Amino acid sequence: MTLPAFDTLAALSGLADQLPVADAHAAEAARARQNSLTKPPGSLGRLEEIAEFMAAWRGTARPEIWRAQALVFAGNHGICAQGVNPYPQEVTAQMVGNFEAGGAAINQLCAANGAELSVIALDLARPTADFTEGPAMDEADCLDALWQGASAVDEGADILILGEMGIGNSTVAAALTSALFGRPAAEWVGPGTGSDKAGMTHKAEVIERGLKRHAGLIGNAPAVLAALGGREQAAICGAVLAARAARIPVILDGFICTAAASVLYATDKRLLDHCLVGHASAEPGHRKLLAAIHKRPVLEFDMRLGEGSGAALALGIVRSALACHNGMATFGEAGVSEA
Amino acid sequence: MTLPAFDTLAALSGLADQLPVADAHAAEAARARQNSLTKPPGSLGRLEEIAEFMAAWRGTARPEIWRAQALVFAGNHGICAQGVNPYPQEVTAQMVGNFEAGGAAINQLCAANGAELSVIALDLARPTADFTEGPAMDEADCLDALWQGASAVDEGADILILGEMGIGNSTVAAALTSALFGRPAAEWVGPGTGSDKAGMTHKAEVIERGLKRHAGLIGNAPAVLAALGGREQAAICGAVLAARAARIPVILDGFICTAAASVLYATDKRLLDHCLVGHASAEPGHRKLLAAIHKRPVLEFDMRLGEGSGAALALGIVRSALACHNGMATFGEAGVSEA
Repeated sequence: MTLPAFDTLAALSGLADQLPVADAHAAEAARARQNSLTKPPGSLGRLEEIAEFMAAWRGTARPEIWRAQALVFAGNHGICAQGVNPYPQEVTAQMVGNFEAGGAAINQLCAANGAELSVIALDLARPTADFTEGPAMDEADCLDALWQGASAVDEGADILILGEMGIGNSTVAAALTSALFGRPAAEWVGPGTGSDKAGMTHKAEVIERGLKRHAGLIGNAPAVLAALGGREQAAICGAVLAARAARIPVILDGFICTAAASVLYATDKRLLDHCLVGHASAEPGHRKLLAAIHKRPVLEFDMRLGEGSGAALALGIVRSALACHNGMATFGEAGVSEA
Repeated sequence: MTLPAFDTLAALSGLADQLPVADAHAAEAARARQNSLTKPPGSLGRLEEIAEFMAAWRGTARPEIWRAQALVFAGNHGICAQGVNPYPQEVTAQMVGNFEAGGAAINQLCAANGAELSVIALDLARPTADFTEGPAMDEADCLDALWQGASAVDEGADILILGEMGIGNSTVAAALTSALFGRPAAEWVGPGTGSDKAGMTHKAEVIERGLKRHAGLIGNAPAVLAALGGREQAAICGAVLAARAARIPVILDGFICTAAASVLYATDKRLLDHCLVGHASAEPGHRKLLAAIHKRPVLEFDMRLGEGSGAALALGIVRSALACHNGMATFGEAGVSEA
């Protein structure tokens, strides 16, 4: 199945009914297999849950990962004009260069955990608009970024890792989560790449101005994405949807990546059913967001880098889960007595 | 350095002074390198700590894992005569066969995370004595198992994964921790391979009888190992010590493995300085034990299988930590602007 075409943001709200759901039969067969393997039932803990999750979304009792795709989307943000980030905006393009040259954390983590990395730079020379002054993107710009994300997904992949890079985008993420899930911006803001306390107070104040300007959009998640989001956030939404259409499970990364995908959750919570969250970021908003979208992270590692780094690390865990699921002998095969 | 020879259990208490310590210069150089890499300082969280830990113990600013050794020690326990385990004791040997045939969880996890597995069966046909009736092992038997563990360590390894298998050994582990760290046995007992509430009450009662019989040994950790432990517990202690002598960092597994190693902690807490604990087991005593020995687990995955499974899973994380540490570009190399 290919993602059904749409050309308005409003169409997102009807999409869940047209997309695949988890395969309950495959999940049940995977669970039965787990209970036959040479170990006390349940003793592999979350590795068993992950194997079942993969079975449900791949639609087979014994899912395998032949091809793991990692996509990192990069964007620039007009909100940087408000001085929300200690790094200069050129760093976004410089880091894209670093990704392409193989020097970033995500390169090493993809290599170590067996993912093929692509970096998609989204019109870096043309930042989105400053959301305190107007919508960050118009509908066409937002849809274009969303479809760039969707079309980057390799339908032959067995799992998709998502990440992002964009100077200023921890402010964008906190603006989105505050608009989508309520509570004051100050409760969602964190240090990002390294803001101090005064910097965080400033970030929250900037976001509150944006929320006030776009107050009429609260409750309309796709419109919130255009008004307060950025191109990499829209692209992440598109990639999550395209993966769902192809029954490809997704591993989301930290606060910024999850905040982007949470636009879909706020639109229709079923839209993130095929997504794991790779880790709980040290960015304080992430745990609140995970509670809001009812996701338990795979790892808790005090990481706060973005780039898909926590998601790529979690891929190694998913590989181990499937290695046990597919490779272990049953009690019968091994001639081991049961309890 | 080879582990200094000793032929009494009492000699364990003087050993820490003769063994290598962490290399503070290498750790400092690793920290300096982390701070030069293309990421906000500290943003890789615990991956950075792990890289520093590896540097400190390998004695080099840029440690690598060429060779990861996994050792699983198996033993049988006289305490099974008290009906502490729902599985028959033959399962220990059957599972050793399963390890040798490649069908167990630990085989898949070692393959997935790049460790070479060896299984050492310790005199399975001759279980230790029932500790409610007398000491489980005499000093010679305990020392023999300890040296079997020590001599199994490959001094050319860069990291060592430790695990165990032995029907009845969650009872042994709870007996050890209760004797070493105090508190009633009931606080250390868990379901193990699958005891119900009545089974756990029975396990605790059996342990209390053992503690009463050997009450005179409390405070003498090596003597507690012989009286209440088993051969795989003694072998784990030996392997931890031999690894230390060769500056090989160790990843301990769950409750039973950590309980064995905690004999060394109770002897001289410096003896576990080169050890990580791979995961926090779902076996309830493990978290209490981690608090008692001041170790933070690498993973928390609700696993409770033993065999070294949680330690092997954590090896993948250590590999990712070193991949970032060694492979990432510095700000200077990548031409990325700093904050």
